[in-house]
Amino acid sequence: MEHLFLQPFSRLAVCGGTHGNELSGVYAVKELRKTQPDQFGSFSVAAVISNPRAVEACRRYMETDLNRCFTEALLSAPVTDATPYEVRRAHELNSQLGPKGSRDAMDLVCDLHNTTANMGICIICLNSDWAGLHLYKYIQERTTATPVRLILLDLAPSEVYSLESLGKHGLSIEVGPQPHGVIRADIYNWMKEALDRTLDWVQSFNSGATFEGGEVEVYIHERSVDYPRDPETQEITAAIHPQLQDSDFTLLRPGDPIFQTFSGETILYAGKELYPYFVNECAYYEKKIAFHLGRKVTMNIPSISVKKN
Amino acid sequence: MEHLFLQPFSRLAVCGGTHGNELSGVYAVKELRKTQPDQFGSFSVAAVISNPRAVEACRRYMETDLNRCFTEALLSAPVTDATPYEVRRAHELNSQLGPKGSRDAMDLVCDLHNTTANMGICIICLNSDWAGLHLYKYIQERTTATPVRLILLDLAPSEVYSLESLGKHGLSIEVGPQPHGVIRADIYNWMKEALDRTLDWVQSFNSGATFEGGEVEVYIHERSVDYPRDPETQEITAAIHPQLQDSDFTLLRPGDPIFQTFSGETILYAGKELYPYFVNECAYYEKKIAFHLGRKVTMNIPSISVKKN
Repeated sequence: MEHLFLQPFSRLAVCGGTHGNELSGVYAVKELRKTQPDQFGSFSVAAVISNPRAVEACRRYMETDLNRCFTEALLSAPVTDATPYEVRRAHELNSQLGPKGSRDAMDLVCDLHNTTANMGICIICLNSDWAGLHLYKYIQERTTATPVRLILLDLAPSEVYSLESLGKHGLSIEVGPQPHGVIRADIYNWMKEALDRTLDWVQSFNSGATFEGGEVEVYIHERSVDYPRDPETQEITAAIHPQLQDSDFTLLRPGDPIFQTFSGETILYAGKELYPYFVNECAYYEKKIAFHLGRKVTMNIPSISVKKN
Repeated sequence: MEHLFLQPFSRLAVCGGTHGNELSGVYAVKELRKTQPDQFGSFSVAAVISNPRAVEACRRYMETDLNRCFTEALLSAPVTDATPYEVRRAHELNSQLGPKGSRDAMDLVCDLHNTTANMGICIICLNSDWAGLHLYKYIQERTTATPVRLILLDLAPSEVYSLESLGKHGLSIEVGPQPHGVIRADIYNWMKEALDRTLDWVQSFNSGATFEGGEVEVYIHERSVDYPRDPETQEITAAIHPQLQDSDFTLLRPGDPIFQTFSGETILYAGKELYPYFVNECAYYEKKIAFHLGRKVTMNIPSISVKKN
């Protein structure tokens, strides 16, 4: 595969509290603010609390999920009195960290999240983002405390609804399992490790290091599965089965148990072999998602280094 | 020790959703409502969603913590326009399940809770409640899936602020770890097991069985420990240390690590030997409690059987 040259990364943003009750990112960003600006050498870091009102209230969001507000359509819609707080805040963040898709945008936006699912460290980035894929490879090769995986967003950039899409490059770092509204030291340490390695990588990249390409394993979303629900009340009638609970990224086969009803019956999986993730994520009950299913794909990525001007 | 005769238990209440985002109890109560009334034989069961608005919103409470509203002082205070929703609801529940301290009160109130702490099954009851202590002994002797412990409330009944104090006898069943707003099948199964054994015990008791007394181990609250906080902002500056996290009911000794600051330093315990519990309970951040500390006490309880009229 060819070798790619990318522009140096001079302006980074590290965001936490995009969901106000995901506390590892909130405290990692607050800690980052205590760092001296010159500690980063070749680049600047903006440490951003994305949704300060939701952080203050320790809620995911106040009016609507901020991390679904960054499509080009929503970012270019006029603001009126009826515009929810989070859409207004998305416009502010777009001015501060973007504008999305422009040459003024941050070189890298790194958004920190937690999940109640047993996901370890999970990077989410766009399929066309070679820097994101290299960051994943770099973090994975150096992390022993917990598995590191990558979910690839198979979307056009304009359609990407999440905050990290404001940058020229972007990645979400999801770390779990952690209850929302709680901070666990183990999960915080994993997130800090992923964040520190991200900053190390950028420093090395800017300094002229070549990052070898090769094969990486990634997960691509196929479909989502809802909880069984009462057809009249829409209330859930089952929990994730104990065998699937905490088994994110473990191959799900036809006939495997996926739900246990509240009266004790087991419901089996009837689809094709796929990998579950975001299993029993707290915030997805309202989105009618019990878990996502994806396929595992081996990608070949090019080697990269900085483009010298 | 003497033998005690207690009145039969003819009216029981099983309550869930006292905290609206503790989902095991919510779904256990909804499941219980599907049971035929005659299935319980010698007693009736009222299945109560204690805080329906908070359950609907999937929040702990709307205005104030319902499970702190059942002191005699609050239950006898006049209701005005400024009275919070939960205090009004406590008055309703007092009419329905009490009145507290009266002969019309439910014979047993069993209140179902979850915690983000690694508490397994934890019964909480009043020090003078022999039925509660026998229920604990009965559940503990029969449960192998997870440890069963008891926290004894060392209070006068009039001062007890929690819902189960409405009944002539009362117990809270706390099951964890489970994130609030999430339902895990394993935790639900533990709660169902504790609840089913409670109903079994009442049926046996009413039928004339003698329950032998003997020694039981209980925990009694000594003091609570707050997170380290920034003196100016009052924000927490540390998480529970990984060695203490998930180690509820494991003896804490002077010199053991208890906190890890967000910059990575370890803070050691400097008090006397005690047992921690409710370690990193989500809802206690706002109450400024990182964990409780209690002493372990061996109690001798009398044998009991039903008083025949």
